[in-house]
Amino acid sequence: MSFERVSVVGAGLIGGSIARRLHEVGVLAGVVDSDPATRSAVAAAGLPVGDVVLAGSDLVMLAGPLDTIGALLTEAATSAPDAVLVDVGSVKTAVHAAVAAAGLAERYVGCHPMGGAELSGFAHSDPALLTDVTWAVTYPDSLGDGWMTRTGAVARFLLEMFDARVVMIDAVEHDASVALVSHGPHVLANALLEVLEAADAPAARHLAAGSVRDATRVAGRNPVRTLNMLADNADALAGVLDRLIAVLTDYRADLDAPRDGALLDRLEQVDRDAAAWRDPDLTWTACTDLDTLLRERGASRAAFLVRAGLDGLESAEA
Amino acid sequence: MSFERVSVVGAGLIGGSIARRLHEVGVLAGVVDSDPATRSAVAAAGLPVGDVVLAGSDLVMLAGPLDTIGALLTEAATSAPDAVLVDVGSVKTAVHAAVAAAGLAERYVGCHPMGGAELSGFAHSDPALLTDVTWAVTYPDSLGDGWMTRTGAVARFLLEMFDARVVMIDAVEHDASVALVSHGPHVLANALLEVLEAADAPAARHLAAGSVRDATRVAGRNPVRTLNMLADNADALAGVLDRLIAVLTDYRADLDAPRDGALLDRLEQVDRDAAAWRDPDLTWTACTDLDTLLRERGASRAAFLVRAGLDGLESAEA
Repeated sequence: MSFERVSVVGAGLIGGSIARRLHEVGVLAGVVDSDPATRSAVAAAGLPVGDVVLAGSDLVMLAGPLDTIGALLTEAATSAPDAVLVDVGSVKTAVHAAVAAAGLAERYVGCHPMGGAELSGFAHSDPALLTDVTWAVTYPDSLGDGWMTRTGAVARFLLEMFDARVVMIDAVEHDASVALVSHGPHVLANALLEVLEAADAPAARHLAAGSVRDATRVAGRNPVRTLNMLADNADALAGVLDRLIAVLTDYRADLDAPRDGALLDRLEQVDRDAAAWRDPDLTWTACTDLDTLLRERGASRAAFLVRAGLDGLESAEA
Repeated sequence: MSFERVSVVGAGLIGGSIARRLHEVGVLAGVVDSDPATRSAVAAAGLPVGDVVLAGSDLVMLAGPLDTIGALLTEAATSAPDAVLVDVGSVKTAVHAAVAAAGLAERYVGCHPMGGAELSGFAHSDPALLTDVTWAVTYPDSLGDGWMTRTGAVARFLLEMFDARVVMIDAVEHDASVALVSHGPHVLANALLEVLEAADAPAARHLAAGSVRDATRVAGRNPVRTLNMLADNADALAGVLDRLIAVLTDYRADLDAPRDGALLDRLEQVDRDAAAWRDPDLTWTACTDLDTLLRERGASRAAFLVRAGLDGLESAEA
């Protein structure tokens, strides 16, 4: 299974960047977007635009807003009856549930590129935005027929087209992980911005430098997209916020006696841990027998990494 | 008053960068550091190194750890009896108090360059690190004789040597401002790192991308320096943490009913406010009569901005 006629639905920052990259490498069949101005911009960029997904598509990548994915999936499934369906949203359990409810589980693979999220709109799209970044590929609790072949083909496609670092991961663990590394940090950025703004401190604006710039980079930025992201992952995110509040409350308490040793111990521990987060040792597992691994650990929440050696994956069901 | 023989005490990241820049422009008299290895590194970089501050220095810039500034000030004041004394630490009220207690208020100006804080050590110093950034120049509650001339000369020196955006600001308001724009964000970065680490989530490490990189850039990083910074500004910082905890608690509550409208309103408000923080409209006040302004607003906490037009400042006491 390989993909040579790929349709992209939704040409915002992410969908637009995917479409531009696929157009570059010659596998873009067409772009669909509900907004006439976006369609014009896509056409002006020289990309093929259509009103509906082309019937002959072998892969459809859905990049519309999270709250429209259910409807887009059904539409695409009908328009392109033979296509594998992929979405690229930042929350996965809700989409897996919608896919199962629509009876499309046998045609679906969940994806999530970990890149380029603070801007939005086709105007900012870039064929290189989602290349050479990590793409999560998610799997549901129960793996139906053809899952290995379909998922392996999508993973290979991402490796070849985007030079992706593919992380194969259970959908529940994916959502818990992005609550930690993406949605939690987004709320922190927003919270800092709110506190800065409420302080009514003109001098603070003048003294703000790199710390504020980096800490608020993702603050605000497309409120509807952010709402969907936070709302669809509310449970996992609530747990992360509870933990952040608890740690900040500890720091607040430490400030009552900052030089009694406890705060320094804490700062030293963070310093030791921080290096590993900045420069993680990501050992890529070449999954020559991913099928065995997945079935052995069917109920676990382990992540499986695939950088190369997908042959085992694709041949497991051959 | 102008400065042509400048000594720098403490050759870490900040002091080292200052010394390299001053050496470039030919006004560096010498570097003093208590650590033999640092002294060797400074000498190897071709900068003049001494055991004590040269007696003929006309300006001494103290860049040692915050908790040593009091001792360094007294030492420098004795070694170089005619020099103006400046420190470049990130908290100012404590230093102003130490200066007053040492009877050195008539020789002192507080400075704080808003740049380059996440690395440390002379090895990372760079003559360009603190050029073209904002430098706060702080004033105490009561302005003694010669204050205008001395402060104006330091501001002009920073403008000329570092192409600085000089923000003249009351020391108390400085500390309140940096609690918002620097120390608060630092604690947020540390708190996120602690929550990430405690989650024991290997998949999260693999999915971490730009959000984690930016949100934890300053996490950890020289625990003793951080302790001094947080401890010396504990009161202002405690207030900022209280507000951050309150806002995060609001977000946490919003997640119980994320689509009822309140969370979206909040996200839209942050989006409107964020742009101004990312790209602030900093109107520089050319203070041709700063003296009048300062005396008129003696008790206020207003910030005064000086980009150019320092003539009024320097001639006010002439």
